[in-house]
Amino acid sequence: MIAVDWGTSSLRAYRLGHDAEVLEQRSAAAGLIACHGNFEAVLAQQLAGWDDATIVMAGMIGSRNGWHEVPYVECPAGAELIAAGMREVAATGFSGRRIFIAPGVCHRPAGGTPEVMRGEEVQLLGLVDRLAGSGPHTLCLPGTHSKWATLEQGRITGFRSAMTGELYAVLTQHSLLGASMQPDAGDEPAAFARGLATARSAGGLPSHLFSVRTLDLFGELTPAQAPSYLSGLLIGHELEGLAPHAGRVHLIGSAALTQRYERALRARGIEPVVHSDALSARGLHRLARQRGLVD
Amino acid sequence: MIAVDWGTSSLRAYRLGHDAEVLEQRSAAAGLIACHGNFEAVLAQQLAGWDDATIVMAGMIGSRNGWHEVPYVECPAGAELIAAGMREVAATGFSGRRIFIAPGVCHRPAGGTPEVMRGEEVQLLGLVDRLAGSGPHTLCLPGTHSKWATLEQGRITGFRSAMTGELYAVLTQHSLLGASMQPDAGDEPAAFARGLATARSAGGLPSHLFSVRTLDLFGELTPAQAPSYLSGLLIGHELEGLAPHAGRVHLIGSAALTQRYERALRARGIEPVVHSDALSARGLHRLARQRGLVD
Repeated sequence: MIAVDWGTSSLRAYRLGHDAEVLEQRSAAAGLIACHGNFEAVLAQQLAGWDDATIVMAGMIGSRNGWHEVPYVECPAGAELIAAGMREVAATGFSGRRIFIAPGVCHRPAGGTPEVMRGEEVQLLGLVDRLAGSGPHTLCLPGTHSKWATLEQGRITGFRSAMTGELYAVLTQHSLLGASMQPDAGDEPAAFARGLATARSAGGLPSHLFSVRTLDLFGELTPAQAPSYLSGLLIGHELEGLAPHAGRVHLIGSAALTQRYERALRARGIEPVVHSDALSARGLHRLARQRGLVD
Repeated sequence: MIAVDWGTSSLRAYRLGHDAEVLEQRSAAAGLIACHGNFEAVLAQQLAGWDDATIVMAGMIGSRNGWHEVPYVECPAGAELIAAGMREVAATGFSGRRIFIAPGVCHRPAGGTPEVMRGEEVQLLGLVDRLAGSGPHTLCLPGTHSKWATLEQGRITGFRSAMTGELYAVLTQHSLLGASMQPDAGDEPAAFARGLATARSAGGLPSHLFSVRTLDLFGELTPAQAPSYLSGLLIGHELEGLAPHAGRVHLIGSAALTQRYERALRARGIEPVVHSDALSARGLHRLARQRGLVD
């Protein structure tokens, strides 16, 4: 089968063997934005030469602005519910083959604000059989919109989002704070740690952000250190709001994304366990099997 | 005398009588950015026809990017210390007249991050003789970079900043959240109150921001309500971090700026007392008197 993780800015395709092992993989900057609605043509091009009969996709491709809107399923959501929510799309250029899109997951806690994910749920499913015990397990997927989820007995029982990555981008590119930053600066661990510490002090995020400017003004932060300090402030506030007080957190993502979260969790006395990026292929294989599309 | 409040984006000039009463006033979008370094020429143009001998100025005009950098004085700072820190600037076109720029104030709490203000300190000084008792009094000046200050016995003993106004601007103009907003929408009190309530719930600001998007997705927030909800979230987090737990807060600013803070303070059981915008002229008069420039 073929598994496709198709998001706003990129497309990742995997050719999988019987045990969900990745035989071949491709990725392209062919996200929703770049497709201009020509989803079938883009998919045909990206999968050229792969002739497997079953194609299962997840991500924003199933959103209102995607190929075909697939309604969210609600928490608690495991492989069974998510597989049942998959929708088949018609594609004349793929005759004799079947294409499915997985639903996203929503969480509507009583008295709280609603939460949604599209794509992260298959990464979570891809991890389920690697977690020891029935849980609850806490999982974090850092990113533009980070997700913190709880898994119990193989099901996503609840989750929260944080706009940490997007906040970092808009503040560095469009606020006063960007003016005193070296944009291509590398990791500055001490500045990052100082940002984490500030995030745990009194005052709140709108106030802490101003310290990026004043520390620069008083020569306590160089333009090369300022991006790491801001990153520490924002990740620190994300953890302050969403991390558990103790125990273990499973991090899902690329090394570039997870390494700062590892340090931030350790600074709070929480044990990080890092898992690789390719879990979405495993999760999509699991959905296909659940739906009876593969053996 | 003439009092001038000269900031990044605007210039406000006041001709004052012996009791600091405003005889005439002018304002122009002639802030630092618009001046391109021609400060003397812009000032001459803005004050045309006013021939008073003493001109006292405050604001970003005394910053590194202004006419003449005037070093900060440190908290605790009252009229005496701030007046002593004023610097006279030479201006050939103003022969026979004297021009002074007031210093900003900095606060460097042990173990905390530094704080700075330029311009707000004269507004605080302008309010001192209107406050009953020696304090401590809590004052809030909402804005792009809000200031929360404590006044005791006529001196600024400490303060904090919050980038609330700038956060609102960059998020509405440059983030995903702006896409679901009606930009010219008016005040929506129920949505604002809901934002305040969300700010008091668990999760933290990076997480709460995502709810602007999900509430729209589930039809719980219209494009006209979204800006007020975001405003409630951000002001709510500012207050959560910086407001006292009880008592009274003096708000300084225009009605447009202070009215939402009034509601936000009342929602927390704090009594707001609103003061008008023209306090900087009174504060500058006080500095001139302290320095012996006027009777």
